[in-house]
Amino acid sequence: MRIVALAGGIGGARFLRGVQAAAPDAELTVVVNTGDDITLYGLRICPDLDTVMYTLGGAIDEQRGWGRQDETFVARGELEAYDAPAAWFGLGDRDLATHLVRRQMLDAGFPLSQVTAALCVRWQPGAALLPMSDDRVETHVRVRTDSGERVLHFQEWWVRHRAALPATAIVAVGAESSAPAPGVLEAIAAADVVLLPPSNPVVSIGTILQVPGIAAALAARPVVGVSPIVGGAPVRGMADACLTAIGVETSAEAVGRNYGPDLLDAWLVDTADAGATVPGVRVRAVPLLMSDLAATTAMARAALELAGA
Amino acid sequence: MRIVALAGGIGGARFLRGVQAAAPDAELTVVVNTGDDITLYGLRICPDLDTVMYTLGGAIDEQRGWGRQDETFVARGELEAYDAPAAWFGLGDRDLATHLVRRQMLDAGFPLSQVTAALCVRWQPGAALLPMSDDRVETHVRVRTDSGERVLHFQEWWVRHRAALPATAIVAVGAESSAPAPGVLEAIAAADVVLLPPSNPVVSIGTILQVPGIAAALAARPVVGVSPIVGGAPVRGMADACLTAIGVETSAEAVGRNYGPDLLDAWLVDTADAGATVPGVRVRAVPLLMSDLAATTAMARAALELAGA
Repeated sequence: MRIVALAGGIGGARFLRGVQAAAPDAELTVVVNTGDDITLYGLRICPDLDTVMYTLGGAIDEQRGWGRQDETFVARGELEAYDAPAAWFGLGDRDLATHLVRRQMLDAGFPLSQVTAALCVRWQPGAALLPMSDDRVETHVRVRTDSGERVLHFQEWWVRHRAALPATAIVAVGAESSAPAPGVLEAIAAADVVLLPPSNPVVSIGTILQVPGIAAALAARPVVGVSPIVGGAPVRGMADACLTAIGVETSAEAVGRNYGPDLLDAWLVDTADAGATVPGVRVRAVPLLMSDLAATTAMARAALELAGA
Repeated sequence: MRIVALAGGIGGARFLRGVQAAAPDAELTVVVNTGDDITLYGLRICPDLDTVMYTLGGAIDEQRGWGRQDETFVARGELEAYDAPAAWFGLGDRDLATHLVRRQMLDAGFPLSQVTAALCVRWQPGAALLPMSDDRVETHVRVRTDSGERVLHFQEWWVRHRAALPATAIVAVGAESSAPAPGVLEAIAAADVVLLPPSNPVVSIGTILQVPGIAAALAARPVVGVSPIVGGAPVRGMADACLTAIGVETSAEAVGRNYGPDLLDAWLVDTADAGATVPGVRVRAVPLLMSDLAATTAMARAALELAGA
C-alpha cells in the first residue's frame, strides 16, 4: 500500500508514528509544510521538517514535542547575553548542527528536498520526507497591537507571542509562485490513500494546499482527514487563533467543511464531535487523543479503514 | 600615549595583556589579522579577532588559548555524527553564538569592523579592535602530498593537518585588492609607537602587511617588533612551517631581517638570541617567555622602552 500524508509539526509527526505502526509494510511519503521555515542568523530553520524527521527517527524530545532529546541550550544562552534579535527562538545546541549542515548544503546549491534526503540518511525515519516545495514560502501574520497593525513572520507570532496578538490575516508569502518539490505530485498520483493528520488546518495543511498543483492532484485521490479540533478546542497548540483569523469556527465540523468535499472523501472526528456533518464527505467518530502509541495507532487504523469504506 | 599593535591570535592576544598592564593609561588600538577567517556552514569565523576579543575581555579558555571558558562542544559532536565536512574545526557552543551574531549582522549589511565593534560592546576588551580589512582576504597554502600538490585554506592546513603537510607557498588571496578597515591608517598615523607582538610573522603579521597602505603607514612610525622565535624554535604554534615555506630560517635574527629596517626601528629578541643583529635596526635581548602576566608585562615594558630609546 502506498500512503501519502501531508504534515505540519508535532501533531502530524505523532500521528505518523501511528500510521507506521498501523501499516508497517506500507510505503509512506510525507509532504511537509515549509511555510513555518525561517532564516535566523543566516541559518535556514525548517521546524516542521525537523520535527517529523526527529520524531520518526527516534530523536525527538518527547516532552516538548520539538527539538532533540538530551538537548542543551548553551549557544542560546550566549545569544541572549549578546542581546541577539531572535533569542526568543529555541535553538538547541544539537539542533543547531542540523541547521549548520543544511546551510552548508544549501550554499553548495542543493535544493531543500535533497538536503532533507541527506539529513534523513542519518535519522532513517522509515518514510520519504519531502518538503512541500523547494521554493521559499514563508507564512506571515498580520496582527492587531495597541499601536496599530503589524506584520510578523509566523514564528515570531507563534513562538515569541504565543499567538496572543489577534491575527487579522495569514498569508503564505511566495506560495502562489512556488512549485511542488520533486516527487510530491508523483507520490500523490501513485497513492492508494492520502491522509491529512491532525495538523494545523490553516498554517500547516492549509499552506501545503496553496502550493499550485497539490490540491488538484489530491482531488483525484481518496483523501481522509483527521480533525485537529476535539470538543471545540485544539488538542494541542493554538489552531483556534489561526482559524479565527480566516473566519472559521473552532470545531471539528467547521474545519471539515472548510476543507470541503473537493478535498476530502472522509473526515475522522472525535467521539465528542459525533454529530458533525460535512456535506459530500463521509464522517466517522472515534477517539482522537494521541495519548500513547497504541491510541495513535488505533486512530491511524481508523483513518485507513475509512479510506477503504 | 597612543599604541597601535598588529596581532594574530593566541601569542598576540597574550602579549597585549602585558601591554595593557605595562601602559594602563595608553590608548590601545589593535589591528587584527583576518587572513585566517573562514566560512564554515555559512558562518563567518574570525579566529584571530575572536581570540583577541575573548582574551582581552576575560572570556578566553586559558589552557587552550582559543575559544571560550567553560566551553561545551555539543553541536560539534552532532556535526561529527552527520559526517559534516568541517567537523575537524573546533566550534564550541558558546563560540557559535558569536558567529551567529556576526552572520546576522553581516547579512544585514554591516562591515566586519562594525560587527566587531558591536561584539566588543559585550566583551569590553579595553582596546579598539579593528580587522585589518573589511574585505575578504583568505590565506591559502599550497602543499605537497603523496599524490601531488594541493591548495588548502590556511585553517585546513593548520588545524586539520597540524601544518604537517610541507607548504611550498602561502598566499593571502584577495590581499592585493583589499583596503585597510576604517580607522586603521588613522590609528597608525596617530600612534606614538607601533608594536609587532610575537605573532606568526608570515600568516599573521605578514598578512596584515600585505593590505595595501598599511606597510607604508608603518614606515613613518616608530615600530618595535617582538620575536616569536626563541632559540631557533617558535614559542608556540608552528611558525617554523610557515617560515620554511617562504624561505626564511627559523631564528630570531632571520625573522628580524625578513621584517627589515624599512619596517622595524627596533627588534626585541630573547636572551637566548642575544647575538642577533639586524642591519639598520636596534636589537635588544630580554627574556621573552610569556609564562605569566608579570613576565608578559615586563616584555611589553621592554618593547615600549625600546621604542623610546
